[in-house]
Amino acid sequence: MKKLILAGLVAAAATLATTAQENYSGAGNNSSVQIHPDNRVTLRFKAPEGHKVKAFATFAPGAWADLTYNDSIKAYEYTTPEPATNEFHTYKFFMDGVGFTDPDNVHTVRDVTWQNNFILPKGDGNDQASMMSVNNVPHGSLTDVWYYSPSEKCNRRMNVYLPAGYFSDKTKSYPVLYLLHGMGGDEDAWVMLGRAPQILDNLIAKGKAEPMIVVIPNGVIDVDAAAGKGTAGLVQPQSEFPRLFSGEYEMAFPEIVSFVDNNFRTIPDRAHRAVAGLSMGGYNSANISRQYPDLFDYVGLFSAATIESVTTGDMLKRFLPADKRNNPIFLDFDKKLKTQFAKNPKLYWIAIGTDDFLYDTNKNYRAKLDSLGLPYTYYETPGGHTWANWRDYLIRFTPQLFK
Amino acid sequence: MKKLILAGLVAAAATLATTAQENYSGAGNNSSVQIHPDNRVTLRFKAPEGHKVKAFATFAPGAWADLTYNDSIKAYEYTTPEPATNEFHTYKFFMDGVGFTDPDNVHTVRDVTWQNNFILPKGDGNDQASMMSVNNVPHGSLTDVWYYSPSEKCNRRMNVYLPAGYFSDKTKSYPVLYLLHGMGGDEDAWVMLGRAPQILDNLIAKGKAEPMIVVIPNGVIDVDAAAGKGTAGLVQPQSEFPRLFSGEYEMAFPEIVSFVDNNFRTIPDRAHRAVAGLSMGGYNSANISRQYPDLFDYVGLFSAATIESVTTGDMLKRFLPADKRNNPIFLDFDKKLKTQFAKNPKLYWIAIGTDDFLYDTNKNYRAKLDSLGLPYTYYETPGGHTWANWRDYLIRFTPQLFK
Repeated sequence: MKKLILAGLVAAAATLATTAQENYSGAGNNSSVQIHPDNRVTLRFKAPEGHKVKAFATFAPGAWADLTYNDSIKAYEYTTPEPATNEFHTYKFFMDGVGFTDPDNVHTVRDVTWQNNFILPKGDGNDQASMMSVNNVPHGSLTDVWYYSPSEKCNRRMNVYLPAGYFSDKTKSYPVLYLLHGMGGDEDAWVMLGRAPQILDNLIAKGKAEPMIVVIPNGVIDVDAAAGKGTAGLVQPQSEFPRLFSGEYEMAFPEIVSFVDNNFRTIPDRAHRAVAGLSMGGYNSANISRQYPDLFDYVGLFSAATIESVTTGDMLKRFLPADKRNNPIFLDFDKKLKTQFAKNPKLYWIAIGTDDFLYDTNKNYRAKLDSLGLPYTYYETPGGHTWANWRDYLIRFTPQLFK
Repeated sequence: MKKLILAGLVAAAATLATTAQENYSGAGNNSSVQIHPDNRVTLRFKAPEGHKVKAFATFAPGAWADLTYNDSIKAYEYTTPEPATNEFHTYKFFMDGVGFTDPDNVHTVRDVTWQNNFILPKGDGNDQASMMSVNNVPHGSLTDVWYYSPSEKCNRRMNVYLPAGYFSDKTKSYPVLYLLHGMGGDEDAWVMLGRAPQILDNLIAKGKAEPMIVVIPNGVIDVDAAAGKGTAGLVQPQSEFPRLFSGEYEMAFPEIVSFVDNNFRTIPDRAHRAVAGLSMGGYNSANISRQYPDLFDYVGLFSAATIESVTTGDMLKRFLPADKRNNPIFLDFDKKLKTQFAKNPKLYWIAIGTDDFLYDTNKNYRAKLDSLGLPYTYYETPGGHTWANWRDYLIRFTPQLFK
């Protein structure tokens, strides 16, 4: 038994037993996913011959690949015909129809209830891949903090990005971007899938964005934290909760701003606050900034759900039937919009992809703003309701803030 | 295509394609691992009939279980004959010899190069399971920060636990525990496997430990951060690096203390500093506290590698051949020990399990201290070189600090 334990000083003996007994899993050596100099990608999956092995991979044509057995390496293999685009890519393996993450790659990311592996091809220094990478620049800090929510009467978790220098210079104060996740997301989504800390580090280091604090709260008031991080324990994440879209989160949002202003060195005024979010978080951002017009000078709606999409859309309308629209957030809609815009927000930025299922309701929302004579900036991209777009929007929105 | 995207507002279309095409993976509903009220555990694995399905599981007798096909749920099943102990348990599945994490459970933890799922049985309020859980108590914050290392001439990542109240009361200063990982570990090991933030939250909330800052640096000076978190990108983690055990990390340790004292509200004196570590981190702790006797009043050696184990042990001696023992850290060993103890450290705590492969060299190290007349506290447990022991040692060591 002691001999076994010798194989790794900090590995628990129980874990070591895994490799001792089985041949086809265990320690990886970059053997399973290889990005070639030209950004083509090879996948390798170690298993006995005779299985049907596939990969779901965003870098493969059509997002699916068949791996073939290579007897010389005792593994199934696949190489993409073309280089991968310079984006954040995900993949997982399927053996005889059962899907799971790569046994030989520890780098995984959660998207709601799914876990996938991810890769980052090498970028050219300025593209999305480069902006998402950990480069040799000053790094900010990511801090998980818990605030007491008077409205929910419990502690709730949020993530806070503090820019490089926050802890060393104890006198400087910063503007704040509140960055909101979508339905199915939580306070970890912009961190893990959105790569917000890396994007902010790189934008600030290049002088493209002002040093700022980024607050990433949890917008699901039915829970206190992301699945596994809260008092509910190791529950499985869900995408739907009863009070999503109810307006209660938005009405209580000043308690989050108050906590942040009291706990971090912020510049606590409208000119130094922005709120932006993706999908449901865009809905939240529009609602919060309309209800509290003195809070935010900058608003970003990334592929936003609109009030129309929630009351009439095929997918969303179950969240807000007519008898659940009594929250103050929904009252005097046009009047509040006019009040908000009468204060001349420095930026009201709407971004969406042409394939997005929310494209039409966003078009209608822009038409409403146009009919009321309220000015906004519009940014349209290809693509749909995807993290590739939301990372792009963050990269484009953030440099416009606090100038 | 738009219909497909409707299935989840924030899930990328590409990910959704996974569930659309395959039946045996995707969203979990706690269907795959179930902890019964009496702490027995059921595992379920969805796959077609005809495969050989096993689980490696620390809660199963002998750590291995055979799952049998249950046609009524179209899944393989297994239930433990006895309740799981109130500890942090890990498991993974094997299908036809290929091992991977549970496709229906997103809660995974990395141990060096392995990824496993983990579960936490319900505790009785005071046991290890309870101390590792997220309870309804004031929570500290975990912050990843990067410090500039003059010795390595690069930025390096560390994790810092700041106790509850750190950000709200901007005047209070705190003592600091430096908590070091073992070989194969990094700055994330005490956070993920060690559950240090949860343990500190709970000990402090119960009044058992003083509020303190816990600094968890990266002890592998060959890299700047844990695999995937640093400038090397998404490399696979390794357990061995050329400069482990070389003494260079320990010699440069004052630069970490200096960074912490300059960036956080510490009480910057010996009476308010502790250093402790597991395995290689215990070796580091002994070396640092001996080399710099004015830095630490509290020292904890958890299953520590000793200088003897590194120069003579079967496994470790390749790291420190005779020609690599010229670092100042290794000179005047007994003289430095005497100098350290002449300053009457408040606690020099040695803990090890009777089955640990380092037990004999620890015994010899204690004999040396005895022969020199140097006082220490000794805590012996059952078990070996395991995280269950290291979490126990943290739970027992921390309440003795800064009283």
